Amino acid sequence: MTTSTSTTASTSATAPTVFTLETMDVPGGTETVLRGGRHLFPLLPRAFAGVRRIGVIGWGPQGRAQARNLRDSLAGTDITVAVGLRPGSASASDARAHGFTEEDGTLGDWLDVTAGSDLVILLIADAALAAHHQEIFARLRPGATIGLSHGFLLGHLRETGGRFPAGHGVIAVCPKGMGDSVRRLYEQGAEINGAGINSSYAVHADPDGRAGSLALAWSVALGSPYTFRTTLESEYLSDIVGERAILLGAVHGIVESLYARYRLEGDDPVTAYERSCENVTGPIARTISHSGLRAVREELDPAGRDVFDRAYAATYAPAREIIAEIYDEVADGTELRSVILAERRLGTRPMSRIGASPMWAAGAEARARRADRTLPVDPFTAGVFTGTMTAQIDEFAERGHPWSEIVNESVIEAVDSLLPYMHARDVAYMVDNCSRTARLGARRWGPRFQAAYEQIVYPAAGAPADPAVLDAFTTHPVHEALAAAAKLRPPVDISVAQP
Amino acid sequence: MTTSTSTTASTSATAPTVFTLETMDVPGGTETVLRGGRHLFPLLPRAFAGVRRIGVIGWGPQGRAQARNLRDSLAGTDITVAVGLRPGSASASDARAHGFTEEDGTLGDWLDVTAGSDLVILLIADAALAAHHQEIFARLRPGATIGLSHGFLLGHLRETGGRFPAGHGVIAVCPKGMGDSVRRLYEQGAEINGAGINSSYAVHADPDGRAGSLALAWSVALGSPYTFRTTLESEYLSDIVGERAILLGAVHGIVESLYARYRLEGDDPVTAYERSCENVTGPIARTISHSGLRAVREELDPAGRDVFDRAYAATYAPAREIIAEIYDEVADGTELRSVILAERRLGTRPMSRIGASPMWAAGAEARARRADRTLPVDPFTAGVFTGTMTAQIDEFAERGHPWSEIVNESVIEAVDSLLPYMHARDVAYMVDNCSRTARLGARRWGPRFQAAYEQIVYPAAGAPADPAVLDAFTTHPVHEALAAAAKLRPPVDISVAQP
Repeated sequence: MTTSTSTTASTSATAPTVFTLETMDVPGGTETVLRGGRHLFPLLPRAFAGVRRIGVIGWGPQGRAQARNLRDSLAGTDITVAVGLRPGSASASDARAHGFTEEDGTLGDWLDVTAGSDLVILLIADAALAAHHQEIFARLRPGATIGLSHGFLLGHLRETGGRFPAGHGVIAVCPKGMGDSVRRLYEQGAEINGAGINSSYAVHADPDGRAGSLALAWSVALGSPYTFRTTLESEYLSDIVGERAILLGAVHGIVESLYARYRLEGDDPVTAYERSCENVTGPIARTISHSGLRAVREELDPAGRDVFDRAYAATYAPAREIIAEIYDEVADGTELRSVILAERRLGTRPMSRIGASPMWAAGAEARARRADRTLPVDPFTAGVFTGTMTAQIDEFAERGHPWSEIVNESVIEAVDSLLPYMHARDVAYMVDNCSRTARLGARRWGPRFQAAYEQIVYPAAGAPADPAVLDAFTTHPVHEALAAAAKLRPPVDISVAQP
Repeated sequence: MTTSTSTTASTSATAPTVFTLETMDVPGGTETVLRGGRHLFPLLPRAFAGVRRIGVIGWGPQGRAQARNLRDSLAGTDITVAVGLRPGSASASDARAHGFTEEDGTLGDWLDVTAGSDLVILLIADAALAAHHQEIFARLRPGATIGLSHGFLLGHLRETGGRFPAGHGVIAVCPKGMGDSVRRLYEQGAEINGAGINSSYAVHADPDGRAGSLALAWSVALGSPYTFRTTLESEYLSDIVGERAILLGAVHGIVESLYARYRLEGDDPVTAYERSCENVTGPIARTISHSGLRAVREELDPAGRDVFDRAYAATYAPAREIIAEIYDEVADGTELRSVILAERRLGTRPMSRIGASPMWAAGAEARARRADRTLPVDPFTAGVFTGTMTAQIDEFAERGHPWSEIVNESVIEAVDSLLPYMHARDVAYMVDNCSRTARLGARRWGPRFQAAYEQIVYPAAGAPADPAVLDAFTTHPVHEALAAAAKLRPPVDISVAQP
């Protein structure tokens, strides 16, 4: 498992670019990736050839992070970055506070910014995108390229019989982490070159041959340590499924059900919190991030390994079943219809709260205890979490996703972006700083995971582990894929301040 | 609130029939209903005019019950009842054991029975109906009437762009109870005239003016104590939503979450079971069945009433929110797409088990204790259950369902059919003797209710009850509607033998 510098600047699968691509070995073949870093910023003007102005439409977590990273990376060039907001947007003052102003032309009405930009990056909320994409498309200047950071709009157009406008490039650069982490790690990159959030990129329409180059330039300017190629379809499926499963929905189901289990076993609230939520967001995430998935099991003593094995083996199949269900519903469009129905029903009402459950009350005290001791990995919790993560990996592999996408969407995004934020803040922060589509999906599927753990997995975990299920884990090809990806990882963890 | 005998045999809203209809007062108006009973059986040949043979296609719980009831009610007439099964059906021996045989022409291939019948009642599983309805339609004899017992096929045809065949009547008679109870209460009707399960009926296509009469005859022959009119669309919506909510899904979420709550409060497993599951299926269901919804609260002492009030007020809004979500998804077709995807995924694999959760282990001991004492209503459990039931009632009323449908689908079917079965057997029996569409729906939505109770409702139940929410309950029009329906209820409870 190695990464090697490719001798040519591009392969047939990728577009011409000024950047030097690398070939990464993955199970069953190779993938072409771009290793990022600040040393590449001087190449950005050439890579962005033909682009004088980048319009970032929207100031949610992704818009806020991407507009700032792009501007900082392009400082000193003649390429400007402007933020477009809808009339009366409550975000205008925060954008101004971060240096985007009407006076210097870097803040304006979303349709005006669209009309004045060569690359228009659409980072408004999914519901707004569903409602307003036609108005935006109508204002694109000839030859302007449309940029997306996930595949929601593709799914929506398919569901409603719409299409992207002809004659425009359509590209996606999709950071595998929440907006705040895209900014936070970029800032850390000033000290340690290459710190950032990995991104996938996709070229969906390329009328003039520039789309691939623009996408890679955009990704480098965001600070992505490595960028891998996918399709908008594949990105859409893995993104929407992943956030419903191991990234948000399943992890919520895991910690709620384990907290209840440990409380019923007699643990006090803080101990139960430490064994469940704190364990996942702390030692388990850290071990996977630094040493890979298999290390969680290998670092346990024999008694702990036995507990891990029973939990893992009992978890895998029921978790896989729900993930397959999610995948089917996302691929079918059913899940997107449910999101659109929910948005209509919610109107201006707030979404239901998820942070009032008794578990979260114990969080503050558990966090206060951190300075005093190092929390060990809880083997049962680790088995449940790892079993669910591996179930998602296998479902994605069976459905034909590229390995870079599988490991980023199933492992790296979890342990290097979302869980560290959850560790520093709490679940409400983690879930509710993601897109509304993600928030709705987590509320929809988290309880399904919880019920499956409580009603199927935990009763079955008393029995000895099925050796075949364990063997499939210890010899799993994902360990090699993760090792290859780890070589592209800069030696820095995200640093999230507690509020 | 009275029921009065109508002076004419039919109204403009109903079809000509030999039966005498009655007018029932309901909130905001009246509904025309037919009171059933064995004294009407002599009228069946005239009501079934033009029908010499009824084909019951399928031998699931409904097919098994309806074929037997129809045959017994039509004994001594020249109308025969035949059962049609698909080739190689595993149900053939059970049908023979109940007296339907190839020798006397009352058991045969489903397409042959279809071709030989004047009324073809389609009671095969939803997935089989989705796959094979065109073959069945192609074999209908000219003028034959299609009979349905729920609206699944309507939803499926709409989703796939299909339609019912022209020139055939399409009617529905939909018993508001599981198949086993349709048979069990019919048998009890031999002792107490009128015992049975209420049914709705709908006339969806009526090319020759006979459809309404045939539907009422079918319902009387099933033993329905009262039959009310609806549309196939309205029946479809209330049926599919109801089984996902208070009939199955919500009740499962209620008992699982309450069991965990009482265990965490320190109750031993059997006590926790008695306060949660046993309470709902026993004293709460019995009180509502005999004395109405308001009686649950009124029969509590002041301290109990306070507990009830807090639980009720905390439950109502979160439960309503999920029921509205279910309703939207059923109306949109999303829910049906998910059922079709699940059937495809399951193939021949069994559905996941729901009876392994720790709660059910305590059930046997709780049942064994019954002889020793009378279990009182638990006020907290009663508040949660009643709050959820009222939320469904209000959602159905807001969506414009007739009151007979609202009270049957939200209250009577629960307390007079499903919960008594669950009380005698267990949850697995209750859920898994319903249609596969219901079983899948309960697995899909039960966990949503459970999570909402645990994470939103129970934490909020510590606060004083909102008086407006309680006032809406105590003055609710449903109490009048239930009182009117109660006058049509025969003085007999279903008697379910423990296995």
